[in-house]
Amino acid sequence: MSIMRILAKDVAQAAQDLGTDGMSGGAVEVELKGWVHRIRDMGGVVFIVLRDRSGLVQLVLDKDPDLTLESVISVKGTPALNGKAPGGAEIRVHDLECIARAAGDLPYQVNGDSAKTGLEAILDNRGLSLRNPKIKAVFTVQATVIEAFSAYLRSQDFTEIKTSKLVGNSTEGGSELFEVAYFDRKVYLAQSPQFYKETMVASGMERVFEAAPAYRAEKHDTPRHLNEYISLDVEMGFIDSERDLIELEKGLLTYIFEETARKNAAELALWSAAVPNADAVSRSPTVSYEEAVKIAGAESAKTGGGRIFDITPEAERFLCSWSLREYGSDLLFVNEFPRRYRPFYTYPLDASRTMSFDALFRGLEITTGGKRQHDYQAFLDVLPKFGLKAENFTNYLTLLKYGCPPHGGFAIGCERLTSRILGIANVKEASLFPRDRKRVEP
Amino acid sequence: MSIMRILAKDVAQAAQDLGTDGMSGGAVEVELKGWVHRIRDMGGVVFIVLRDRSGLVQLVLDKDPDLTLESVISVKGTPALNGKAPGGAEIRVHDLECIARAAGDLPYQVNGDSAKTGLEAILDNRGLSLRNPKIKAVFTVQATVIEAFSAYLRSQDFTEIKTSKLVGNSTEGGSELFEVAYFDRKVYLAQSPQFYKETMVASGMERVFEAAPAYRAEKHDTPRHLNEYISLDVEMGFIDSERDLIELEKGLLTYIFEETARKNAAELALWSAAVPNADAVSRSPTVSYEEAVKIAGAESAKTGGGRIFDITPEAERFLCSWSLREYGSDLLFVNEFPRRYRPFYTYPLDASRTMSFDALFRGLEITTGGKRQHDYQAFLDVLPKFGLKAENFTNYLTLLKYGCPPHGGFAIGCERLTSRILGIANVKEASLFPRDRKRVEP
Repeated sequence: MSIMRILAKDVAQAAQDLGTDGMSGGAVEVELKGWVHRIRDMGGVVFIVLRDRSGLVQLVLDKDPDLTLESVISVKGTPALNGKAPGGAEIRVHDLECIARAAGDLPYQVNGDSAKTGLEAILDNRGLSLRNPKIKAVFTVQATVIEAFSAYLRSQDFTEIKTSKLVGNSTEGGSELFEVAYFDRKVYLAQSPQFYKETMVASGMERVFEAAPAYRAEKHDTPRHLNEYISLDVEMGFIDSERDLIELEKGLLTYIFEETARKNAAELALWSAAVPNADAVSRSPTVSYEEAVKIAGAESAKTGGGRIFDITPEAERFLCSWSLREYGSDLLFVNEFPRRYRPFYTYPLDASRTMSFDALFRGLEITTGGKRQHDYQAFLDVLPKFGLKAENFTNYLTLLKYGCPPHGGFAIGCERLTSRILGIANVKEASLFPRDRKRVEP
Repeated sequence: MSIMRILAKDVAQAAQDLGTDGMSGGAVEVELKGWVHRIRDMGGVVFIVLRDRSGLVQLVLDKDPDLTLESVISVKGTPALNGKAPGGAEIRVHDLECIARAAGDLPYQVNGDSAKTGLEAILDNRGLSLRNPKIKAVFTVQATVIEAFSAYLRSQDFTEIKTSKLVGNSTEGGSELFEVAYFDRKVYLAQSPQFYKETMVASGMERVFEAAPAYRAEKHDTPRHLNEYISLDVEMGFIDSERDLIELEKGLLTYIFEETARKNAAELALWSAAVPNADAVSRSPTVSYEEAVKIAGAESAKTGGGRIFDITPEAERFLCSWSLREYGSDLLFVNEFPRRYRPFYTYPLDASRTMSFDALFRGLEITTGGKRQHDYQAFLDVLPKFGLKAENFTNYLTLLKYGCPPHGGFAIGCERLTSRILGIANVKEASLFPRDRKRVEP
């Protein structure tokens, strides 16, 4: 039984049996297993805070059990109400077994304030830092994000797919690909499931999603980038424009936020975080790229900042503050991106603009998406304009040649969304085992 | 609206409105979008079978629309009952638009019998072969397997994790690892999330699962192997022995089978397949490795086969037939594997045997699992017996040094389970974009 079930059920039972200040009389006995989070020896009485997957509870012992912090123990005892204990209750222990004694030279202070630990120490000691309740909360929330992402899309008739992460050619953006020695040839780690999710739409599944790793061999080290990240990918057929995708993403984010609020209130509280409600999401504006640059420029001018020519990270922050002030939502969508900023397969709006969009949330781009070119001849025609050769796109051309519906999709960066929900400064903190230019351990 | 919703709702409505043999009078109009699956020109009347993500429906036109197979069309029409049409209904079309015309040189016959197409043709033309309803059904079932796997484990308080697929060292089984050029160093594609899922158990999540790619650089090309596969991984803390894991897997498989039967009756029918019911799963026996070798040997002798010394693929088939005959279940568990067949971190039962198991289903091993060594000193002691050096296991040693509970887990090969559910001979057919020694396209 977990701590939270004990607190929810057996303590209530104990309170009924014993009265609100009642000491245990043996009426209820519980067994708990977990980690020694804190030890306080008051002389005569010893308090231990026990931690399991569900939370923390105070144990009361009448003699020193000679334990080290982080040891794994099993205890039997009777619950009792105690307004001064965390959670309002404690367990009076009459039986304790040490299952796995932790060495005394703990290299990371699990029960400390994680905000006071540097990022490198947190990541170097990942197995231990993840035991800190506030750090663990990041990944409880992330699991909810992934679960809600999947559940919402299934409710909209989307099918989950699992596509290969090894691709045979490097025609698109070769410089940002990691090379894999694959028997007697070279292949590459997929930057995104783009071609595969489009293939699945055209194969007749029409609506597909995938939550899987994606790889970018980018050399820069910023609080926004990971070389391996979880891409929450969506693709659907029979859309008219990117506006259909923006509507889908609004519904999807609303559900993700609602589920996070419903399931992870304790985790949000640890980060002093709150998610936008459905109302706020529905108010989120969509502005064109051109408008967005103007808005960001005006915001920058107000604060005495420099001119804005592009949707830079700084502009993303300005746009979110503007949206929050004007619409009560720090989520917004920027569409109609110029041709030059989008991949060749992006569907044109006109000669210079595309049917594509970004989603910005709390100052950070969390999504890129758009309608794709589905017409065989138009695709062939656009390749030379990007300096590309048809012979390197035979898979794409086969996809489009035999009946491909209008379609489009988007990808949400899972670590970025998680970090924005909780207010985490560096996206690496929202990756269990982050990979950057220097880090491949643990 | 999808075909199946039309058939379920509007046709019933049409039947009410129009009588069972009623021709449409315009009372109900539907719009459908999909692919031209089949065309039959009867002179005067043209029948088209339209395919969308949900199924097939017959369209009736009074003139030849000049379409090619696999073109994407949009139609408006009125549904009517017709006992001779597939699904018992048809759509009398009064408006048809061709959205994306397919070229006439279709290299794969989508509406043919997929059983008559060779595996290479199916995989070379993956984008087209996936349009075949029977082939598509494989991945509808696979999506259910993954969904049910996740849902069941969440119901048992497991948390979904996403771990890195890039590992910095090759200490465990280096010869079967794919090497990745990672900036100025070499890293490897993870063979399994073994270390990471153990880390997450010890980090206090206690119960975790992951559905993600895993990589084996094995050179052999068999109907049982993929170089990239989807590993359905489970790990849990506070177990006594591998028997706890076998019980968990029985519950998990029962739920996966129930959900497949409930959601994918049409897909199972296309493959003439059925899943075991809860009763059959509960009857599945667990036999020790030693017993299993004897049983397989006796079965082999009965059929005039050779002697059996080991759980070979042939022995797996014998064991499943035996289990089906004796227990009415072609699922069984083999536990107590000898030390020499298991990784060094497997928990010992005694000097020669381990607390580990395989699950065999319909003649194929679908799972390997076991309890892991959680004791720091015992782990240190076992390394030299396997010719391994402690200095190469610093991450593992840190994991065990600071309070690691008894734990264990298992992994189900997703493509293997899918193929056994449907009776697919080669596991490559149960991978959307399979990778083998020669294939990295499409």
